[in-house]
Parts: sequence; C-alpha cells; structure tokens
Amino acid sequence: MAAPQIDPFARIVHRFATAGKLQAAGAMLNWDAQTHMPPGGAWARGEQMAAITEVSADLVGSEAAAAELAEAEALANKLEPDDRSDLAEMRREHIHASAAPKELLAARSRVAQTLQAVWTRAKPENDWKSFAPGFAELLTITREIAHAKAEALGTTPYGALIDAYDPGVGEALIDPIFAELAAVLPDLIAEVRERQAGWPDPIPFGEIPVERQAALSHRLALAVGHDPDRFRIDAAPHPFSVPHSPGDVRFTTRYDTHQVKFSINATLHEAGHAMYEANLPRAFAFRPGGMARGMTAHESQSLSLEKMAGRSREFLTWLAPRMAEEFGGDPARWSVSNVLNAWRRLDEGFIRVEADELSYPLHVILRYRLEQALIAGDLQPADAPGAWDDLFQKLLGRRPPDLAHGCLQDIHWAAGLMGYFPNYAMGSMLAAQLFERATADDAEILPALGQGDFTPYFAWVRPRVHERASLVSFADLVETATGAPLRADAFKRHVRRRYLEESLD
Amino acid sequence: MAAPQIDPFARIVHRFATAGKLQAAGAMLNWDAQTHMPPGGAWARGEQMAAITEVSADLVGSEAAAAELAEAEALANKLEPDDRSDLAEMRREHIHASAAPKELLAARSRVAQTLQAVWTRAKPENDWKSFAPGFAELLTITREIAHAKAEALGTTPYGALIDAYDPGVGEALIDPIFAELAAVLPDLIAEVRERQAGWPDPIPFGEIPVERQAALSHRLALAVGHDPDRFRIDAAPHPFSVPHSPGDVRFTTRYDTHQVKFSINATLHEAGHAMYEANLPRAFAFRPGGMARGMTAHESQSLSLEKMAGRSREFLTWLAPRMAEEFGGDPARWSVSNVLNAWRRLDEGFIRVEADELSYPLHVILRYRLEQALIAGDLQPADAPGAWDDLFQKLLGRRPPDLAHGCLQDIHWAAGLMGYFPNYAMGSMLAAQLFERATADDAEILPALGQGDFTPYFAWVRPRVHERASLVSFADLVETATGAPLRADAFKRHVRRRYLEESLD
Repeated sequence: MAAPQIDPFARIVHRFATAGKLQAAGAMLNWDAQTHMPPGGAWARGEQMAAITEVSADLVGSEAAAAELAEAEALANKLEPDDRSDLAEMRREHIHASAAPKELLAARSRVAQTLQAVWTRAKPENDWKSFAPGFAELLTITREIAHAKAEALGTTPYGALIDAYDPGVGEALIDPIFAELAAVLPDLIAEVRERQAGWPDPIPFGEIPVERQAALSHRLALAVGHDPDRFRIDAAPHPFSVPHSPGDVRFTTRYDTHQVKFSINATLHEAGHAMYEANLPRAFAFRPGGMARGMTAHESQSLSLEKMAGRSREFLTWLAPRMAEEFGGDPARWSVSNVLNAWRRLDEGFIRVEADELSYPLHVILRYRLEQALIAGDLQPADAPGAWDDLFQKLLGRRPPDLAHGCLQDIHWAAGLMGYFPNYAMGSMLAAQLFERATADDAEILPALGQGDFTPYFAWVRPRVHERASLVSFADLVETATGAPLRADAFKRHVRRRYLEESLD
Repeated sequence: MAAPQIDPFARIVHRFATAGKLQAAGAMLNWDAQTHMPPGGAWARGEQMAAITEVSADLVGSEAAAAELAEAEALANKLEPDDRSDLAEMRREHIHASAAPKELLAARSRVAQTLQAVWTRAKPENDWKSFAPGFAELLTITREIAHAKAEALGTTPYGALIDAYDPGVGEALIDPIFAELAAVLPDLIAEVRERQAGWPDPIPFGEIPVERQAALSHRLALAVGHDPDRFRIDAAPHPFSVPHSPGDVRFTTRYDTHQVKFSINATLHEAGHAMYEANLPRAFAFRPGGMARGMTAHESQSLSLEKMAGRSREFLTWLAPRMAEEFGGDPARWSVSNVLNAWRRLDEGFIRVEADELSYPLHVILRYRLEQALIAGDLQPADAPGAWDDLFQKLLGRRPPDLAHGCLQDIHWAAGLMGYFPNYAMGSMLAAQLFERATADDAEILPALGQGDFTPYFAWVRPRVHERASLVSFADLVETATGAPLRADAFKRHVRRRYLEESLD
C-alpha cells in the first residue's frame, strides 16, 4: 500500500479508509447473504468474507500500519481537531487488530463458525452437552484475546471486549447503572403488572398479509424521513441494518402474519439505525472517525425511534388510523385505546428479543453478569445454564422451562460475541436521556409525532449525535447533547410516566 | 500477507486466491449495483469497488508478489501439472498487474470513468466534439500500457491488450479468420436476403407482459439445467452474468414487452455463460487456473446455448408451444414456422447487439480493424467516425445515419476496453466448431433439444470445456475438444445449413 510523496496523515487515512471500504463491501455482501443469495452460495460467500476480513485486518493491524501510524502521530499537533480524533480512532482499531496474535483471532473465527452450527441444532434439542465443549474452547480463546487487548488498552479483560464494540462504555459506567436497574425494575414491574390486570383484554389484530405489512413498513420509512432514492427495505428473519454505506442505507424487517407489531417495531428500530448511518458526515466516510460512536450510541438511535418516539401516545395516535387504512377489518381493532393496550402490555416470557420495555434491561443485566464471571474465571462454562436460571429467577421472578428459553436462546456466545450485550440496555438509558432532553428543548417534537412527522426530532438529534460520528468521545457526546453524563434517571422517569401514569384513553 | 511456515506454492496460491475472492466480491457488488442498489449508492459503491481493485492489484502485482512468485516458480518441477498451469496463470496475472506503472493504470481508470459519463450524453446528441478529447487522452494512455505489457509478454501492443481478456487468442489466430469472414459473409448475406424475400411476413408476437416473460425465462434456466438452489435471474438493461461465484451463479436478462425475443435470447445467452461458471472445478475456485479460459471460450458457451442450441430447429420446435402456453393470444403466432421465420430473419440495422447471426461477425471485424489502426497509430482518433462509416459501408453495404448508430454505439471505447471486441466473433467460431463436433460425437444431442433437454449437450461440453478451466491453454482446449485448431469452417458450414438449406416448414 505504499503511496510515495504523500504526507504521513494522508497516507494513513488512505490505509484505514481502504480497510473501511472493504468492510463496507463485506457488510453489503452480508446483507445479500441474508436477503437474496441462493442457498448454494454459502461456501463461496464465506470464502469472500474471510478474504475481506483477512485483508482489512492486515491493512489495519500490520507492522507497516504501526510504522505509518506512528509517523502520522508524531505530527498530530499540526492537525485539525477532527483529524486528530480520526487518528486516535485509527490507533484504537490498530490495537484491536494487533494486540492479540493473529493465530488466536483466526482460531476464534474458526471455532465460532463451528459452534454456531452446533448451537443451531443444540438449542431446539435442549442439548447443553453437545454445545459445552466448543463453548469452553471458545471461552478459553476469548479470555486470552481479552487479556492481550486489556494490556494494550489499559482496561480490564472484559472491558477490552466491550471496547471493541463500544469504546467509552466501560464497566465503570455500566456497573452502577445496572445495579440501580436491578434494584428498582423488579418492583416497578410488579406495580405495572397489577395496574394492567385491571385493563380489558386487547382485541386481537388478526392475520395481516405480508404485502400489507410491507406497504406500511415502506410508508413508515418515508414518514421517518428516509429518501426514497437512498434506502431500501427487505425481509430477513433477524432484522438488521447495513453500516458504512452512505447514500444507500438498507435495512431489513421481519413479517409475521399473526404479529403485526413485529414488523412495525422492527421497521422503526432499523430505520433508526439507518438514519444514524445516513447522517454520518460524508467528509469522513469510511474513516474510523466517521463511523457511528459505538453500539450504545447506535442502539440509542434505534430505540429512540422504536420505543421513545414510536411507542409514544402521540405517534401511536397517528399510527392507529394508518393501520386501519392499510389493514382493514373490524375498526375497533385499530382504536387508539386498543393499540395502546396491545403496545403497552408487559410480557411474561423468557426471550430477550420479545421482552417488554421494562423487563428488557433485566435480560441484559443477566447476560452481563454471567459474561463478567465467565471472563474472570469465577463461573465455569459447565455451570452457566444453572447460573442463568438462578439469576433469571432472581431478576424476573420465574424460571426458564428449558435451554431454548434460557442459556441457549441467543446466538451471541456461539458467535464469539462477548462484551456485546451491555449496549442493548445502555442504549435504552441513552435513548431516554436524549429523548427527554430533545422534547424539553423543542416543544414541537411530540406534537409533530402526532402528525407522523419526525422532522423536529431529527433536527434536534442529527447535529448532536449523528453528525458528530466518532469525532468526539462517548462521554463528550452524551454530556454535550444532554448536559449530563449517562445515568439511569431519565429511563426511570420515562417508564414510570408511560407505565404508571398514562391511561388507555 | 505473510504466512509463516508454509511452502512457497501454498503461499502464492493463498495470495492469488485472496485477490480472486476480492474480485469475486467486486463482481457481486457490481451485480447489486445493476439490479438492486438505490440510485444514491453510486458514490459509495464506486469507492468500494476502487478499494477492491487497488488492493487486489496490489496483492497480484506488488514486489512482494513478484518475490513469492519467483520462489514458487523455482520449485515448479515438483508440482502436479494442474498446479503448474495455475502457477503459469499467476505469472500472467502478475505481468498484467505490474508491467505498466501503477499511475498509468490509475489514470486509465480515472479518464475512462469520466469518459463514460461524457459518452452517455454525447451518443444521443451525435456529438463527437465533446467525446473526442477524452477519447484521444484515453487512447494515448492505453497505447502506453499496451507497449509496456507487450514488452513483458512478448506480443504486439494490440495483442497485449487482447491477452488481458483472452490469452491464446492473438492476432495470428484472429487475422486469417476475420479476413476469410470479411471475404465470404457479404455475399452470403446477399444470398440469404434474396431467399428470405420470398418468405411471408412473420405474424407479430404482440405485447407480452414482463411477468410472463420472466416466468418463461425461469423455466428456460431450469430446462438448461441450472439448479434452483444455485442460481437467480434478475432484470438489467444490459444483461450479464456474474463470474467467480461457485454455487451461486447469477445472471440478468432484459425484458421488452414488444420484443419477446430479447428476453429469450438474453436468458439463453447468459444461462450459457453461467453454466460455464457453475461447472468450473471447485478445487481451483478463485485461483487463476480455476477461472474460465478467456473471453472467447466464455462467449463460445453463451453462443452455443443461445444460437447453436437455442436457435436450432429442434429447440425452437420445443420452445414454440411453451411460448403459446406462457404467452397465449392467437395460436398462429406460436406455430413453429412463424417462430422460425421470426428467429431467422436477417436485420438491416446498424447496431451490433441487435445484429443477426451472419452480420454479427462483420460488426466485430470493423471494430477490430479500427482498434488495430488506432493502437498502431495509423488512424487518428479524430478520423475514427469517418473510418467507421466507410468500413461499415464496405462490409455491410449501408451507411450509418448518425454516431449513435455508428462510432458511438458501444460503451467499450469510453470504458477503456480495447482488445475486448474480437472475442465476440471468435466466440461464434468456437461455438460452431464445438457444437458441430458435439452433435457428431453424440447423435442424441439434437433430438434431446427437441424435448427441451440439454443433458446430453452439457454431458459433452462439461468435461471438454468447463471443467478444464484455465488448466490448459486455449489451443489445447480447442484441439482436444474438437480435434482441430480454431477455424472459420464450422461456422461457415453452420450458417449455410441454417440460412440456405433449412426451410420454414
């Protein structure tokens, strides 16, 4: 990648942006694999993805990269602040790509690849025994990687794993928030449950054909503000949005003819992720400093749209008659009161991705505590299922009936994604804190949502979150946008208001 | 890309296969850009493609590649023959990536990028003046590249350009064949035209909706033998098939409600390319030796399917009642005699891609001669339009009315694709020679086509062409499969039989 007669900063930008473009290509090929690829393509696609991973890791983590990076850093004081931030992100990416031996990273990919296939069979068969050996092996490798990265980053080993997804959201920030949530949410849930016991049963929405749901999803994406020339929605069993694709944001949703809420919630959620990506600064496209700030910030944007705005009384009041238009049938189904009733109900299940707004953080806290203990060596993999069930009982007051509803429900551990879960709950905290501040700063935001208009909301969040990309730290981002560091307070106020004060009328 | 403790051959295979996988990723992203990408994605996709091109050119053409290649070549006598062939292909790829200075290759891409946009506007406006300066600049760059490669390859400069697409199909092979065709085809065309003047006018097929044509296209792909789990067809204005994608071959077709022949011909053509790709040896996937033998061989496979098999009386006899089933309307349209009448008619136009089987090689010969003269410096770019029209008059007996029907009709020169055209006609020669031999070797091939069954045909061609990939030279491939070097004889016999002997009954 030598580029003669070019200044050291331009050279290092070119190197990392090239890696960023390859990763963007990989993200698009992953989208294709989940939406359009014929089944026969799995092997070739795996080979292509592995080549992209290897080459981009080499671009970012090689000794040549280290030398070029050091040369650019020596001149850092001459750079504009945004470029300095970009350079700091390059250093972080370099550490993640180089701190652990290559062979160890390759071994993690290989073992995780196999373990995901094992997990797919083991989960429905309630079969811990076949899952355990691979999981133990993957955990050993992950701990070694965590220790190597921790040394280079100056974090705890588990903190180093989180840092790969979410720099600036370490255990020091998470621990007190999760402790507070674990202390207050169980009682709050009991209180809400008692209140909802007095509500009438919601009228079922009935069976809604996929085409009708797809039409509403498209309409929602446009209402949110996506440009029809710059996005597309497709269907996928596990909804996701595609990063690093300026001018062409793609997201997926899922359709269940018996559960119209699934597509509406997934569409709003992914449209929120996609809007963050769409608004990232073009001048820093594909550069480390131009990426979203991390997974907590990303999840805050999907949750702001799905839950804060998308489940507000105002928005549901706008949505209910649109559902009546698109879906038809008995109009009583689509009364605002019935829609609120269906959308507000707490669930009594065991599955994280189907959990209500109040239980959801507890599902995450459970995983966080088990991961901490597994990485610290305080919990042996063999004891994980029991520890899961005990903690579930303690936090949510019931006991999973089997592993598919317990320790084997998520693919993350099979995929080697440790340190990823916390952002799902931290994102809820940030979403609440941002939304509270936004609606306080601009009194038009909520009334506009009542008209299906997201313009005032995005006018607030776009310059304060989206356009700042990774050019500021997570702490800076939160404090500048909301005037305070991240806490659980806004979330607590939000759920009390929505679940204990709002009525169905 | 250092891979310690690995033998030199394995190391060089890994390097070139990694480049091959990146190129495969690029081919898939190009498919996406032409079929699914929202318009806003053009900029980001361009950036991703440029990164893939740069990184894979670097993998193949760098000094590190040269050193590793030399090390592997020193041990070549210890390799199996197929691996030795693979190694020879690596050397050829290395020469193409390294013989000309990087800056020159980058300049060609940049100028061609701009010139394609200019061409898009200049063509409908009959505007040579705005096209000429960029074309002259691109030609200068192309000539420099051609000279640098010629020295490294030991070919003529124009031969070096051809070699990038079609190794083994040099001017020594092309010149006598094209001279012979230019001598005999004009008279033959006149003779056929006279014969067809006595035919009734074909009954028009009428307007056929896109969905009906798409249903027939899918049915044709299955009849040809594509595995439903391993291919997909989409629509694109300029049909193409995606290379380097084992287990997931994708091709596109075009639908014109007024011209049902377009989709049928394009589907068969691309299904032929796709079958070659589908049958390449998996053990050499992504390796230089595992790719198709070159563009003439590739085109021979598309043309064998589209023209040799797909326009045979036998196949059209099977196809006619299927068109009646899928398209309906007046049954007289779909009589075998009317279908033959429509499919056999010579055209009187000026457009290569719409030309009939007999005129088509003359369109190609025209471009070939102009390219030779342009690269040799015997023709100045400013004189190209006039030279085009004169040669068209000479070969095809009429004069293009404007540049859109003349010198500006194709995108190739704007895209910097010089040396690419010859394969379109050489592919016709090879298709005829292969098909003649196949039907002589296996008397079941033609009757099976009459049942819409391509099994015997592919049973013949698969081991003789597809599975040999680039593990043998072009000359070896042709001689082993057909018993003779490539000549125009089989093509001449084929067109005489089809156009002067066959009747409509």
